[in-house]
Amino acid sequence: MSLLGKTCSAIIEVDDEAAAATQRLLDDKTKPRRSLGRLEDIACKIASIERNPLPPLPTKAIVVMAGDHGVVQEGVSAYPPEVTRQMLLNFARGGAAINVLARHAAARVIVVDMGVNGPAQAIPGVLSRRIAPGTRNFTLGPAMTVEQAVLALEHGIAIVQELASTGIDLIGLGEMGIGNSTAASALLAAFSGRPVEEITGRGTGIDDAAWKRKVAAIEKSLKVNPPGDKPLQVLAALGGFEIAGLAGVVLAAAARKIPILLDGFIASTAALCAARIAPHAAGYVIASHQSVESGHKVVLEALGCNPLFEFAMRLGEGTGAALAMHMVDAALHVLHEMATFASAQVTDTGR
Amino acid sequence: MSLLGKTCSAIIEVDDEAAAATQRLLDDKTKPRRSLGRLEDIACKIASIERNPLPPLPTKAIVVMAGDHGVVQEGVSAYPPEVTRQMLLNFARGGAAINVLARHAAARVIVVDMGVNGPAQAIPGVLSRRIAPGTRNFTLGPAMTVEQAVLALEHGIAIVQELASTGIDLIGLGEMGIGNSTAASALLAAFSGRPVEEITGRGTGIDDAAWKRKVAAIEKSLKVNPPGDKPLQVLAALGGFEIAGLAGVVLAAAARKIPILLDGFIASTAALCAARIAPHAAGYVIASHQSVESGHKVVLEALGCNPLFEFAMRLGEGTGAALAMHMVDAALHVLHEMATFASAQVTDTGR
Repeated sequence: MSLLGKTCSAIIEVDDEAAAATQRLLDDKTKPRRSLGRLEDIACKIASIERNPLPPLPTKAIVVMAGDHGVVQEGVSAYPPEVTRQMLLNFARGGAAINVLARHAAARVIVVDMGVNGPAQAIPGVLSRRIAPGTRNFTLGPAMTVEQAVLALEHGIAIVQELASTGIDLIGLGEMGIGNSTAASALLAAFSGRPVEEITGRGTGIDDAAWKRKVAAIEKSLKVNPPGDKPLQVLAALGGFEIAGLAGVVLAAAARKIPILLDGFIASTAALCAARIAPHAAGYVIASHQSVESGHKVVLEALGCNPLFEFAMRLGEGTGAALAMHMVDAALHVLHEMATFASAQVTDTGR
Repeated sequence: MSLLGKTCSAIIEVDDEAAAATQRLLDDKTKPRRSLGRLEDIACKIASIERNPLPPLPTKAIVVMAGDHGVVQEGVSAYPPEVTRQMLLNFARGGAAINVLARHAAARVIVVDMGVNGPAQAIPGVLSRRIAPGTRNFTLGPAMTVEQAVLALEHGIAIVQELASTGIDLIGLGEMGIGNSTAASALLAAFSGRPVEEITGRGTGIDDAAWKRKVAAIEKSLKVNPPGDKPLQVLAALGGFEIAGLAGVVLAAAARKIPILLDGFIASTAALCAARIAPHAAGYVIASHQSVESGHKVVLEALGCNPLFEFAMRLGEGTGAALAMHMVDAALHVLHEMATFASAQVTDTGR
């Protein structure tokens, strides 16, 4: 069986019994029942994923995958495509928002070139998993071949295997790629059947004219690549190398019972691709924020996720995932460190 | 002039120019303009409070004040009043939620006995600023005298002076007091004129019968202590020692240009009392979360605050403030550490 096939077949349902056991532990802590609200939910969710009522404090990483997109030829972005490579260098030097926020959250940043425009170039601190120098323009045909999509997925899977072997047990998704909100909206349109206008946002900040070009490009892409019922083919036709790579990260993490923190619209859409390929994978993802991209809400609903916070962010890179890591840590600190009614001799009314 | 009078007269408007200068610094960072959303707002807000476009990473404390409330005689709480003292001991031993969350946020916890039931008792790790062993039942007359309210306010002011002298420059508000959501709803009813039923919640988790008693007690308290136009008198009649103490904390922090992180309904109501006493103080507070207490939204609106997150929390103690500290730190890390378009040689389209 292929690496992809083996990974998918290893993904089982999360363990609701472990979550219930965690809730019982939390109910013994010196606080009114459920008074820490979503912080308690986070602890229970991590328990259900790890099948352990008392999951340890996590060792964290954010996987930031970068790729370029042929569809930028249609004038769909506010930034020129060379910015993808420039930002890859910025990630490698530690100057981007995700470097700063991951440092603050004590998370490693793994930067992966999945297929950025231009010649192959060894960049210290960047993993090279280049499939091609950018996808093809999907208004003219599939963005990638199915073989390329599988290769991207398997690169993602292999990276998680490597991370897991170093003890990483919480993974945040991050991405960078000029044009990739166009790809994400196209994927979401194909998977959800929603009108393109409703789920197409402003990406990095395009004006009305560019937004209209973006909508038109997505509509054309859906005609040129009519979505069938095979998620892998949809991903190949309308996705991107970094999106497929992140979908592979989600599949491998789910197979290994590692919780995955989503980020914005594009990373969440990658998780949706994973969940269409292997439905139980949806149980392993935790939403971080709700971005301003109009499609993000639709993706999160499709994944059955309720975002933790809404900060009007639209940067990507894993920035929302990094912020949410503080909440995950907080939830697990509460679970491990709070006194119980009995240990602290506090009257428990059972409320 | 009294300590309270001097403190109030030192509170000036926050500095919008500093906030605008911070936004210009953020606009040069390698990200689309405003793409970090509320994280950028936080940095600008701290700048406006400290009158410094590049505020340093803060040294943090959470001031948790505890007090008991005579109104519990009316059967308004799910917990017996002895829980206030039990929790004070739990705080002192480090086993409560706020101890755990403050440790994780690298914040000191300052626990203050402002007037807990029972005999005076030296508790290691607890500051004793006891005004009386609990307030009086405000359905029968004022909860405290105006002199007691001033004393509580001035204890809060003195504590901030002490904290500031040790370098603390970010303060979170926390409270503990069985019955204090009843006091907070009464204060809010008096200050806002809103119907008591609308702004009275379930506190630590009371049933319908107790909720009706709570509403009835608040309505009676407003008849027995008709709110005049003097905020200090309203605070004395309907407040609590810990609420007045926290109002003092807010006033002193505002006078010293120290940002204040709100917590839930009761701490936010304390800040509203401060803002009624000295209106410019409202500019120095930052909302953390929106709790499930129905009055919390009303208080935050009255303060002009937009909460950062909504976690269905209802514990108090400063737990929401502690969580929000990660966001404040993240915002300032971004401001200090991110590369600029120029330094990273990334193309800036001005979007």
